[in-house]
Amino acid sequence: MDFRSDNVVPAAPAILDAVLNANRDSVTSYAGDPYTERARAGLAAVFEREDLFMLPVVSGTATNALALATYAPTYGAVYCHEEAHIRLEEAGAPGFYTGGAVLVPLAGPNGKFSAAALAEALSHANAGGVHWSKPALVSVTQVTEAGTLYTLDEVRAIAAVARKSGLIVHMDGARFANAVAALGCTPAEASWKLGVDVLSFGATKGGALAAEAVVLFGADAAARDRLRYLHKRAGLLLSKMRFVSAQLEAFLAGGLWLALARHANAMAARLSHGLAARPGVRLAFPTEANEVFAHIPDAGLKALEAGGAKFLRFGAADSTLARFVCSHATREADVDAFLALARRHLG
Amino acid sequence: MDFRSDNVVPAAPAILDAVLNANRDSVTSYAGDPYTERARAGLAAVFEREDLFMLPVVSGTATNALALATYAPTYGAVYCHEEAHIRLEEAGAPGFYTGGAVLVPLAGPNGKFSAAALAEALSHANAGGVHWSKPALVSVTQVTEAGTLYTLDEVRAIAAVARKSGLIVHMDGARFANAVAALGCTPAEASWKLGVDVLSFGATKGGALAAEAVVLFGADAAARDRLRYLHKRAGLLLSKMRFVSAQLEAFLAGGLWLALARHANAMAARLSHGLAARPGVRLAFPTEANEVFAHIPDAGLKALEAGGAKFLRFGAADSTLARFVCSHATREADVDAFLALARRHLG
Amino acid sequence: MDFRSDNVVPAAPAILDAVLNANRDSVTSYAGDPYTERARAGLAAVFEREDLFMLPVVSGTATNALALATYAPTYGAVYCHEEAHIRLEEAGAPGFYTGGAVLVPLAGPNGKFSAAALAEALSHANAGGVHWSKPALVSVTQVTEAGTLYTLDEVRAIAAVARKSGLIVHMDGARFANAVAALGCTPAEASWKLGVDVLSFGATKGGALAAEAVVLFGADAAARDRLRYLHKRAGLLLSKMRFVSAQLEAFLAGGLWLALARHANAMAARLSHGLAARPGVRLAFPTEANEVFAHIPDAGLKALEAGGAKFLRFGAADSTLARFVCSHATREADVDAFLALARRHLG
Amino acid sequence: MDFRSDNVVPAAPAILDAVLNANRDSVTSYAGDPYTERARAGLAAVFEREDLFMLPVVSGTATNALALATYAPTYGAVYCHEEAHIRLEEAGAPGFYTGGAVLVPLAGPNGKFSAAALAEALSHANAGGVHWSKPALVSVTQVTEAGTLYTLDEVRAIAAVARKSGLIVHMDGARFANAVAALGCTPAEASWKLGVDVLSFGATKGGALAAEAVVLFGADAAARDRLRYLHKRAGLLLSKMRFVSAQLEAFLAGGLWLALARHANAMAARLSHGLAARPGVRLAFPTEANEVFAHIPDAGLKALEAGGAKFLRFGAADSTLARFVCSHATREADVDAFLALARRHLG
Repeated sequence: MDFRSDNVVPAAPAILDAVLNANRDSVTSYAGDPYTERARAGLAAVFEREDLFMLPVVSGTATNALALATYAPTYGAVYCHEEAHIRLEEAGAPGFYTGGAVLVPLAGPNGKFSAAALAEALSHANAGGVHWSKPALVSVTQVTEAGTLYTLDEVRAIAAVARKSGLIVHMDGARFANAVAALGCTPAEASWKLGVDVLSFGATKGGALAAEAVVLFGADAAARDRLRYLHKRAGLLLSKMRFVSAQLEAFLAGGLWLALARHANAMAARLSHGLAARPGVRLAFPTEANEVFAHIPDAGLKALEAGGAKFLRFGAADSTLARFVCSHATREADVDAFLALARRHLG
Repeated sequence: MDFRSDNVVPAAPAILDAVLNANRDSVTSYAGDPYTERARAGLAAVFEREDLFMLPVVSGTATNALALATYAPTYGAVYCHEEAHIRLEEAGAPGFYTGGAVLVPLAGPNGKFSAAALAEALSHANAGGVHWSKPALVSVTQVTEAGTLYTLDEVRAIAAVARKSGLIVHMDGARFANAVAALGCTPAEASWKLGVDVLSFGATKGGALAAEAVVLFGADAAARDRLRYLHKRAGLLLSKMRFVSAQLEAFLAGGLWLALARHANAMAARLSHGLAARPGVRLAFPTEANEVFAHIPDAGLKALEAGGAKFLRFGAADSTLARFVCSHATREADVDAFLALARRHLG
Repeated sequence: MDFRSDNVVPAAPAILDAVLNANRDSVTSYAGDPYTERARAGLAAVFEREDLFMLPVVSGTATNALALATYAPTYGAVYCHEEAHIRLEEAGAPGFYTGGAVLVPLAGPNGKFSAAALAEALSHANAGGVHWSKPALVSVTQVTEAGTLYTLDEVRAIAAVARKSGLIVHMDGARFANAVAALGCTPAEASWKLGVDVLSFGATKGGALAAEAVVLFGADAAARDRLRYLHKRAGLLLSKMRFVSAQLEAFLAGGLWLALARHANAMAARLSHGLAARPGVRLAFPTEANEVFAHIPDAGLKALEAGGAKFLRFGAADSTLARFVCSHATREADVDAFLALARRHLG
Repeated sequence: MDFRSDNVVPAAPAILDAVLNANRDSVTSYAGDPYTERARAGLAAVFEREDLFMLPVVSGTATNALALATYAPTYGAVYCHEEAHIRLEEAGAPGFYTGGAVLVPLAGPNGKFSAAALAEALSHANAGGVHWSKPALVSVTQVTEAGTLYTLDEVRAIAAVARKSGLIVHMDGARFANAVAALGCTPAEASWKLGVDVLSFGATKGGALAAEAVVLFGADAAARDRLRYLHKRAGLLLSKMRFVSAQLEAFLAGGLWLALARHANAMAARLSHGLAARPGVRLAFPTEANEVFAHIPDAGLKALEAGGAKFLRFGAADSTLARFVCSHATREADVDAFLALARRHLG
């Protein structure tokens, strides 16, 4: 009953097998290997873009920071939700990788900001001219930090505002698999067809050991070149990159990534449904992917912990907000055991 | 009737004379001259701190950025009001000079945040550990961006919270002269006696051509060394620094700086009083120093402009918020002419 | 016969097994897992320093950059050999991680600089004062870029000069295992007992998939804190760090790392001995670890390539300098096959 | 007899007058004033380029750093002479402003590197690909750090090599006035007609208080925009820029800048001629502008100092290399008094 995060669990067996199988023969180092080429081809197929450019990366923080730095000047501004991971929980990585760009927070319920909020913020910045950081990108998190989803129309509207002001559109897709599984659309429909230029494609939370990719849609040679140099300069161009690329290849093969995500989402739905039925429990946000946020009285939270459930508490010391994350490795039995515990202790 | 800013007006004659008088003989370059030493001594006397360390700087933006970078690590966080000049109107200079530190916005009325708001923000950051930018400084703007003043008690309370969390306290004193003149306390009472560690001391808005100073109170040798290197590396260690230092020296001599500030404040009070008496006019913030912010119907603003008054409009295109700044060079006749205009056109 | 680098070969089986075995149960993410603690304990035991602090990292470039950034101010200078990897082949990573510090090249034969060369460079910098980048660290590469070794006395002398000027001593130990194996001393004798403060400890070239460690000897709490934040901010604090730490743990267990390095060194010695006996072949540097540098006429190099040998050519287009690297995975039969080829084609 | 530098002397009277005359009326702040527009027009006329873009800056270090940062990516490399001011005496400002770009030193006699040296360095970097910092600019110092001049053909050849590799050509013209005066060509012939893209145009050493300009030749809108933001973000967009721009305007008006430079050059030639005639004295470099470098026995240097002459010694403690700089303010009588002293004490 460990619902702390989707990064505390083991990797999916098929992905671990792929790492094992990559340990043969000698191959060219620094991503010049066939595993990396196949990972790229896999992404190109999944996203239906033969011109897709990607580089494998070992962490979500680095992936986001590289994605932003590929497009933000050192004096740029990146617009994002005020609760965005890039703003709060990446220790300033975007400012580091970009050489000083700032993140401008936008407010909005359920972890989402609107196209109108972006437009208003841009009108202030544009009036400020050179005295204000230059608007450069907007970053949309899909699945959001609140475990919710932007509708395709919401992203499309944000991208339209961005385009009008010359901004690049980034999507933080650490849980992109869960989003696509939940939205029931194609990966292309969830990304570049909406106007997304650069995607942080996550696999680690989805079942890999440590594998993500910066994905550029329709990037010109100069942008690819910038990403390549930024990636190397950060020490992220691993000499034995094959072991990362092999994870991405296996993650994508045969739709494994979506199957794993569907499972995680289903487990969260089950958990959410059962939990919300308890008296005194109030969902903080709609459960739309693999994360459940709920307000539960402190006594209840303590009882759950005492009963062996693991989860995170958010906010201030006396907060009643808890988060329960399901993953590819969550078993139905774990969820049911947790719900039994909830029935015993929550009203 | 040019009330656009206190930086559109000429320099005070006594300060210009000092520049002229500095043009004699050869002196050691790069701040090794007697003018710089006398400017330092002048600040030490005014602030009653013989151990005061300072470096002359030619702009407020650079002064603030240097002040912050002396104490913020590259992965640090600086807490400030959401409307702070360092956050909005310095094009990301703090992130640049610090090598990536972020500014964390705090809300609050009249351009001021409270000690409680700081404490709450710190409790979140401290819970986040290494995933959050490391809290490093708090920055208080005095006079605020809203033309208001923190009371001494308010600053003292903020500094106490900061101290408890190991934060350094910075004061953005671009209009420190106006603040001291209005508060009626000594410079020491308005700064280090409250817990301020580093002050951006402004002279440009007060009557100089281009002269500010980063002022460190009780800094150890390592901090002085950091500031010296940061200052040089930014290209701010002018070879003929005498011409900047001479301005600071003259600004301080015989209390000129406070006399000029008292005049500016008095002009703003006169303007504010007259303007607030007009029907349809509403002061946006209390007038506590040399700036008047007022909501005036659009037709009225246009009439004032047509009548020859110059001022800035703030906010969105249809905003009715206007700012009127008085300076050492504002004449009583200008204010009265403006008020006559207001009487004619505002109700 | 792939002698291109020690990073083109597969990982050592025992290390891959450790990754497999780490895929059990859920553990705390972000390095709060028992594998990381055991990797730390392993390093502490090997280096005979219970107070050793370390963080796992996935690449040598990132490890070096973090090591330097822990100690270099943004305006600092790092002294190193003019051929140092950090200076030439890490795409400017040290400047990136430090926020602008510069690398000062020191010349010297066989990939080594002397204590005297360092002392002379420091005397210039110290005379330059604030106009010069502030001397902050010296970086010694052991094994050097020329495949040679500093003697313990040579490092000790460099460290003594560094200490006198207040510099921190860094050792780039991407091939530290090969160095210790060749020097026949203890890891402690090859590092902190000589005055090394911070070590880039490499395992990737030695047989891991992607695992290195920044190792601090005797670091105070502030330095540890800096490293922790820099590491996180770069996106190098992997959520599933267990998979990196497990590699380090296995690398150290039972002296595996030294056994693997001794093998690699022995293979290089065998290759070097055989190659140097060919007419027309001249070793460029003494073979002291696992790399052989030789000048071979262009026709000979082409014949070796045509015969199936893989290796790198260095320098300009018409250069005759080739490098042959042996690794844990090099088989004696490969070396002998290569030498047979050499006998056939090189005179 | 103060020959320490051309920055220890007072400003030229005409330039100081211009500052005085700029102290009238209120004008738009932040470079939106007529003085700045006239300074730009003055440069455009002098350089015969109506499309010239420029921003005023208060120091040479900041000017160079901005010039480089306008074109260097954060992972870029700038090629320059190993003794270049940007590399040695600007405390790492280029790395700071560019966000991490490195300076690659090129050797060569008399403070000059050759087109061939640049070509060879580039061939190495290009072979290194993404592992090496990306070649971005070459920087030529004219007048050089050795007081010598590149011939027009030498600069043209360097620019041709640069162009072939896609590099931007920067000229550090802190003493550009002295160069043009000595070369006897037009400013255009000494800069953009040779292939120079961006010039650090110096006025401070030539007689201003603190005034330089970054000058872009044929820059597109994106480059202008980059420079504007970088300039603001560094805190170099002074609110009362009129006082800097007025200096530039006066410097250029009626050819004053060249008249002052010709005088400085003539004084240096007189000093050089007289000094070289003394036994035991050996010029270190040819005297081609306003600086004289000479090897003089230590006893002689001490005697000159005792006699009241001021100058700088270069190099190690026991060095015999001294530098004598003449300026717009050097009087013939000073030179003759110095030469009389030399005759008394030097053989």
